[in-house]
Amino acid sequence: MPLDPSRTVAELKELRELTGDANGAQRAAWTDTWEQARAWLRDKVAPTGAEHEIDEAGNQWFTLRGDSDRAVLIGGHMDSVPNGGWLDGCLNVLAGVESLRRIAEEGTPPVTVRLVDWADEEGARFGRSLVGSSAAAGSMADQDELRVLKDADGVALPDALAAHGIDLDRALDARSQLESAAAYLELHIEQGPVLESLDLPLGVVLGTFGVERHRVTWRGQAAHAGSTPMAERRDALAGAAKLALEIRDIAARVGDGAVCTSGGVICKPGIVTSVVETAEQLLDQRHLDAAKLAELLAQAKEASERFAAEERIGVEWERLWSIGPILFDETLVGFADEAITEVAGASHRLPSGPLHDAAEVSRAGVPTVMLFVQSLRGLSHTKLEDTKEEHIELSAAALDGLARRTIDWVASGGGR
Amino acid sequence: MPLDPSRTVAELKELRELTGDANGAQRAAWTDTWEQARAWLRDKVAPTGAEHEIDEAGNQWFTLRGDSDRAVLIGGHMDSVPNGGWLDGCLNVLAGVESLRRIAEEGTPPVTVRLVDWADEEGARFGRSLVGSSAAAGSMADQDELRVLKDADGVALPDALAAHGIDLDRALDARSQLESAAAYLELHIEQGPVLESLDLPLGVVLGTFGVERHRVTWRGQAAHAGSTPMAERRDALAGAAKLALEIRDIAARVGDGAVCTSGGVICKPGIVTSVVETAEQLLDQRHLDAAKLAELLAQAKEASERFAAEERIGVEWERLWSIGPILFDETLVGFADEAITEVAGASHRLPSGPLHDAAEVSRAGVPTVMLFVQSLRGLSHTKLEDTKEEHIELSAAALDGLARRTIDWVASGGGR
Repeated sequence: MPLDPSRTVAELKELRELTGDANGAQRAAWTDTWEQARAWLRDKVAPTGAEHEIDEAGNQWFTLRGDSDRAVLIGGHMDSVPNGGWLDGCLNVLAGVESLRRIAEEGTPPVTVRLVDWADEEGARFGRSLVGSSAAAGSMADQDELRVLKDADGVALPDALAAHGIDLDRALDARSQLESAAAYLELHIEQGPVLESLDLPLGVVLGTFGVERHRVTWRGQAAHAGSTPMAERRDALAGAAKLALEIRDIAARVGDGAVCTSGGVICKPGIVTSVVETAEQLLDQRHLDAAKLAELLAQAKEASERFAAEERIGVEWERLWSIGPILFDETLVGFADEAITEVAGASHRLPSGPLHDAAEVSRAGVPTVMLFVQSLRGLSHTKLEDTKEEHIELSAAALDGLARRTIDWVASGGGR
Repeated sequence: MPLDPSRTVAELKELRELTGDANGAQRAAWTDTWEQARAWLRDKVAPTGAEHEIDEAGNQWFTLRGDSDRAVLIGGHMDSVPNGGWLDGCLNVLAGVESLRRIAEEGTPPVTVRLVDWADEEGARFGRSLVGSSAAAGSMADQDELRVLKDADGVALPDALAAHGIDLDRALDARSQLESAAAYLELHIEQGPVLESLDLPLGVVLGTFGVERHRVTWRGQAAHAGSTPMAERRDALAGAAKLALEIRDIAARVGDGAVCTSGGVICKPGIVTSVVETAEQLLDQRHLDAAKLAELLAQAKEASERFAAEERIGVEWERLWSIGPILFDETLVGFADEAITEVAGASHRLPSGPLHDAAEVSRAGVPTVMLFVQSLRGLSHTKLEDTKEEHIELSAAALDGLARRTIDWVASGGGR
């Protein structure tokens, strides 16, 4: 069948009918609805002749064998968060299906083409995202931690996986899936406001941000709001307030797309009649450049020490999580620019704030790139998530143009 | 008996043994332990010959009849918060007992002298403080609200009072107690750091602060911490942070002892990966001058509108509570200065941040003054509350000197 991007829109709506309700998409991984969506997907792909397989980590693979075993991978995920949107994850897969149809129709491709539906990208049920792709990438280093995770009903993660035929102890055997991978492509909704603000339908993702995530705890002295003169106070909230404002100046100074967020402050005792004794502040800093990410953190720490001294309060930093930046493949970024310009007239390069399965594959050494399609109002993980249908069609066409260029490249010796 | 301030210290320790435990004082109003403390007090006062009476609001009165019915009142409260300190409230009463002993020993006084142990000053059990004094002052305007208050065990306030012989519907009949009151005197621990920072044992209270208490709600837009560029954000926390810092400048500009406190900020969604959508900020502003209190509030509101515009967020103000300043009697303030200087060499005038029973009596039109004795580290409502024994003795002596001057004044036609 020739490429028909309007079919992608129609199939997304069909999937929404099948696996969503009034509150949004309900395809959380390791549920019956998720299995239903994967069975539906298998039926959709079957006419292409691609071979179906579930790997040791629960990832669903469709393989269109080519003249060479070296493979171009197109990925996405059928799972959603509970009450999720109609596009996050499944647009990626369904646009890939459309490309697979076009490739199959044209006869045996020069290299193998594989579509992968990663298992449990969202981590909605157990709080650990990128489950399937991190197993395939070999970066799932926290199996002992996974073993003790429980869902809201007290079901342990290994038991939930076992109910879907997956043995956690063997999940890392999924690494064999990436042995033949020469390149990896992924389309995703942006989940941010950049493309909409630029009035562009599509963009190329340069890589995923490195992240520094900390809890900053300020310690002052509780004191009566009525009987304590201003000069006698040691107000923990003052430190948090200064830092919440300062991180914006730091992001501007470091620049190049730096983002810094104070997502919340918990004040104790937190009552109207007392100066704040303890303020626990959440801080998230992101940059695509490792050195600049380190600079964001260093400047915030230096500022916090200065504020602590000014306010005669204490400050402590506790790292909650961090990850380095992951940069996508330069050649593939170029192909992506071409493919987007071909269908939309203009492209734009931007980093990804959220992590994606593509980051895991890239970390495993497979040349990788992603496309973003505009998200209306930047909303995702809600039933309000939306993208114009004309943009969805453009995104499917651009992904196919990227696949075509990548297959030619790998066939001529490019890729890993 | 001549005045013996060391006896006040000894009796405070005796009361602590009788009604406290390892966690502090346990004389919450409307409990058996509180009744035990009041029975103990009655036995202590009995040798003076003062008449004992419980009024319609549960206040305990000891009346030493004088040549005139016009009465000088000395007040305090035997009730404590749970796990309270050994001084808050009962120091006032026991220093008054010592003065009563001295006056009784000297024969029939020229005017009547009354010691009052106000019922439920702390409001620890039902969350409504100054219960007995507001009834006597006639300012208990919220009887319908009191009627529905319940304690942590679900017991309604009227039932708890009835168990101690008090009929809430008749509580306001206690107003008759103040008909003959010519002046009211109260000693209290400072519950703040001012006298300690000045290295002074005693101070005269000019009045109680007026209070403006508000919830300030900032409304921005939740947005992904990774995918939302800094310039696109509408961060509710930024508004709260700016106001938390600005109120300090406002307090400094308005001056004359102004205090402004942001006791807490509740952030929603309050997660590390999202810009703050809603920040609910608590604000407490106090001043002894009504016009300056209004100025504190007006400047904070004006600043909040400016910050909301700068941050492209919304701001709403909700008044939680307010009360005007209550100024004590100028003549009695002068007597208090003299009495303090007599025993301690130096006096200091300061406002009271917390409210006290004295504020209710003053609002009822009775000339009133308070003495503060230094609190170590400004702590109260905790077993760590403490005052040097030598300062406790000085405070009892100063209260007696103030009582002597006030009795002479009232006898010569002063007071109400």
